[in-house]
Amino acid sequence: MSLLAVGSVAFDAVETPFGKRDRMLGGSASHFSIAASFFTDVRVVAVVGGDFGQAELDVFARHNVDTTDLEVIPDGKTFQWHGRYEYDLNVAHTLETQLNVFAGFEPKVSENSKKSRLVFLGNIQPELQRGVREQIPEAELVALDTMNLWIETTRESLQKTIEVVDLVIINDAEARQLASEPNLIKAARKILSWGPSTLIVKRGEYGAAMFTKGGYFAIPAYPLEAVFDPTGAGDTFAGGLMGYLASQEKLDEAALRRAIIFGSVMASFNVEEFGTERVQRLTHDEINHRFRDFKQFTNFEEIPFQKAVTSAQ
Amino acid sequence: MSLLAVGSVAFDAVETPFGKRDRMLGGSASHFSIAASFFTDVRVVAVVGGDFGQAELDVFARHNVDTTDLEVIPDGKTFQWHGRYEYDLNVAHTLETQLNVFAGFEPKVSENSKKSRLVFLGNIQPELQRGVREQIPEAELVALDTMNLWIETTRESLQKTIEVVDLVIINDAEARQLASEPNLIKAARKILSWGPSTLIVKRGEYGAAMFTKGGYFAIPAYPLEAVFDPTGAGDTFAGGLMGYLASQEKLDEAALRRAIIFGSVMASFNVEEFGTERVQRLTHDEINHRFRDFKQFTNFEEIPFQKAVTSAQ
Repeated sequence: MSLLAVGSVAFDAVETPFGKRDRMLGGSASHFSIAASFFTDVRVVAVVGGDFGQAELDVFARHNVDTTDLEVIPDGKTFQWHGRYEYDLNVAHTLETQLNVFAGFEPKVSENSKKSRLVFLGNIQPELQRGVREQIPEAELVALDTMNLWIETTRESLQKTIEVVDLVIINDAEARQLASEPNLIKAARKILSWGPSTLIVKRGEYGAAMFTKGGYFAIPAYPLEAVFDPTGAGDTFAGGLMGYLASQEKLDEAALRRAIIFGSVMASFNVEEFGTERVQRLTHDEINHRFRDFKQFTNFEEIPFQKAVTSAQ
Repeated sequence: MSLLAVGSVAFDAVETPFGKRDRMLGGSASHFSIAASFFTDVRVVAVVGGDFGQAELDVFARHNVDTTDLEVIPDGKTFQWHGRYEYDLNVAHTLETQLNVFAGFEPKVSENSKKSRLVFLGNIQPELQRGVREQIPEAELVALDTMNLWIETTRESLQKTIEVVDLVIINDAEARQLASEPNLIKAARKILSWGPSTLIVKRGEYGAAMFTKGGYFAIPAYPLEAVFDPTGAGDTFAGGLMGYLASQEKLDEAALRRAIIFGSVMASFNVEEFGTERVQRLTHDEINHRFRDFKQFTNFEEIPFQKAVTSAQ
């Protein structure tokens, strides 16, 4: 039932109107694997520098995240990102990006990891994603995330990678940009025509939608009064989603629907505190409580309209 | 079971990338009442000029919309609106607005109409809305729509009107602007603190959300590949919603939830053709079909996550 995640492990410095952190565990693979760890065994393929310490490794260890494939380059420095959010947290500014050892990242997948049942190709160069995908031909489900940078600079390579995955998990604007199509339903149809069986679209405060060849599923977001730090919400969503899927024997439409709910639940916790702080402390009871909330606030009785035979006044 | 709607009746000229119409029946009260007519008896309080002809009156008559309170000013001209939409239909330009007889609109509610069980105060000056509300003190449920113009120019009067209605139906941006609060959940709480028991937020292609003192409900939008003309979608949503409510004996949370689905269904048809053209031709089977679609694409099994006792590999 194992799940493999490829992506970045970083130190994040984040400023929001509510506070700041100078150096905390971040990166797509960190957010993803910690979220996924609540549902399944996770292995991480990433690279860090000699400055990556025991405290950070302990976070992974506490969540039973396998770091065998976490390459350490002792004389290099870990990827660092520095960002600032405005009062409207949808407005983000990247103040500094130091790729460091991440600039030369070549994902190395160990023999054991090649047996993973599910694979998540986090947001890195499409060519590297494809390289990993080819090393795990037996995987039952391979998912991919990407970003506007790769759509703009490596569109052809990205499309080739999309052709060989099962599931694409991207945000609303990226889906439209990737398909060069403002209507999301048409954009989804186009992306699915390239090969994947499923497209899951992240819509932030508006929720998420799933498109399959014949189907559609959509949910609103968990209602939050206090969003604190949105960093890593997308990767946490993907982690909850893929982690839950990895815990299921049948990866059918019903499992995918529940997986989207669990992904949304994990993302809702992620944004309530800095970095991975809230998610690290989660319990299964808290997760299941919000899962049930989702049912409660999306449910309605399926009673079609019936015209009264006579209508008084 | 009757429903009273106050608002505008207009001639709309609309240009979209897909075609144009020079002069068609428009205005909030028209879209609202035609949509509502599929569920209940509707009466319209509005004003038109001498140029409002038999063809337009016939549309109301065919839908059994009572026009007793539709004032005709023979030597005046009907409200005219001219708008153009870009390829991205979210981008709209008002090319011309001729208020004409609508500038001096003083809603006159006949004795019969004062017995209406439900009232919809369409988007007009808050003071006029309040005047109508006061004439129908016995109404079981009074709903109000408004717009950024009134939030910006008559905020105090608008708030006084909101204090005396039961249900506010506005869009996402208006809710945030009205409450001076970027977080929608907090904005909703603030608006409800002024008096209404329910706030329904229209989110266009992202669906709709409902806030009550203790509850929350949200749904995505009906997925449409071809949006043709968004004019009147909000009023059509409100018409479906209020029309359905008027058909129900109990106006409880469960009825409100279904009403939001029916409102969304009506709006989804409205945008598929110019003006009210598609809605005019609707059948109850078509409406119920999309209602059932909503259940299908929002449903998931409520199975909480259970950690396996031992997890292999």
